Amino acid sequence: MKYGIAIFPSKDIQDVANSYRMRYDPHYALIPPHITLKEAFEEEDEDIEKVVEEISEVAKETNPFSMAIRKLSTFSPVTNTIYMKVEASEELQNLHDRLNRTDIPKEDTFNFVPHITIAQKLSDDEHSDVYGSLQMKSFEFEERIDRFQLLYQLDNGSWTVYETFRLGKG
Amino acid sequence: MKYGIAIFPSKDIQDVANSYRMRYDPHYALIPPHITLKEAFEEEDEDIEKVVEEISEVAKETNPFSMAIRKLSTFSPVTNTIYMKVEASEELQNLHDRLNRTDIPKEDTFNFVPHITIAQKLSDDEHSDVYGSLQMKSFEFEERIDRFQLLYQLDNGSWTVYETFRLGKG
Repeated sequence: MKYGIAIFPSKDIQDVANSYRMRYDPHYALIPPHITLKEAFEEEDEDIEKVVEEISEVAKETNPFSMAIRKLSTFSPVTNTIYMKVEASEELQNLHDRLNRTDIPKEDTFNFVPHITIAQKLSDDEHSDVYGSLQMKSFEFEERIDRFQLLYQLDNGSWTVYETFRLGKG
Repeated sequence: MKYGIAIFPSKDIQDVANSYRMRYDPHYALIPPHITLKEAFEEEDEDIEKVVEEISEVAKETNPFSMAIRKLSTFSPVTNTIYMKVEASEELQNLHDRLNRTDIPKEDTFNFVPHITIAQKLSDDEHSDVYGSLQMKSFEFEERIDRFQLLYQLDNGSWTVYETFRLGKG
């Protein structure tokens, strides 16, 4: 099965993100707004409990931390993806790095840019228009992150939560 | 915030349910296929951790159990809702009843009919057609339930998982 690891931010942030995703993100219905900690990886069902134990250990050894969003950004010209930029923090980077060690399947091959996607798969023109108009708006959030989730993907592309991990607890 | 409690069955069952929900259930995009254990209830954010402790206690005192699906059924004529009927079991009934005690907000006011909705809000004609054609198909599943989830509802009506509870563990 295909698994992934993500943080769901507070309802406030999710509601704001969804107000844009509804129009600009074809993945709107597949998963709530989230920060990906580990990209999709394949794991056999019978081995997932071992992975859960590994992840639980990482969660236990990571304290809850503060997450800030101050602005939007874009992955253009690589992809026409607009996102709420999550401020870099040592805690978030460490959590990401530990979840992408070799004993949890599949290391990320690109740099970790923590973000919450609000628009993707836009045409170049759409991207310019949407990014231009969104830049007038303020996106300011700060909140405490105390958990993250392991999810699996269904055949229709949507994601179901398998397990919740509490930071500092497991 | 509005919270609810549900079991997500295995990916196999969710994939089958979604193949029908895609066409026949307007809630398709709001939540994965599920068995509702506790209908939506309001709780203040600052009180939810107390509720989580209560629920965790119930989870810890409930052993994993076997769940069987043998056929489809319908809530017609009350509502034109078609569902996979989850066979009655003492464990499931007890879990439901304990999660609907008075110290967890809001008791259910109707009987517990465990089910996975695959079609709803159909017209009478649609309901007859769909139910008629689905009755030719076999729906046979049996699996072990070892967890359930506490979710909250976003402004767009979709649900995000807040916490996972493991049966026998909490």
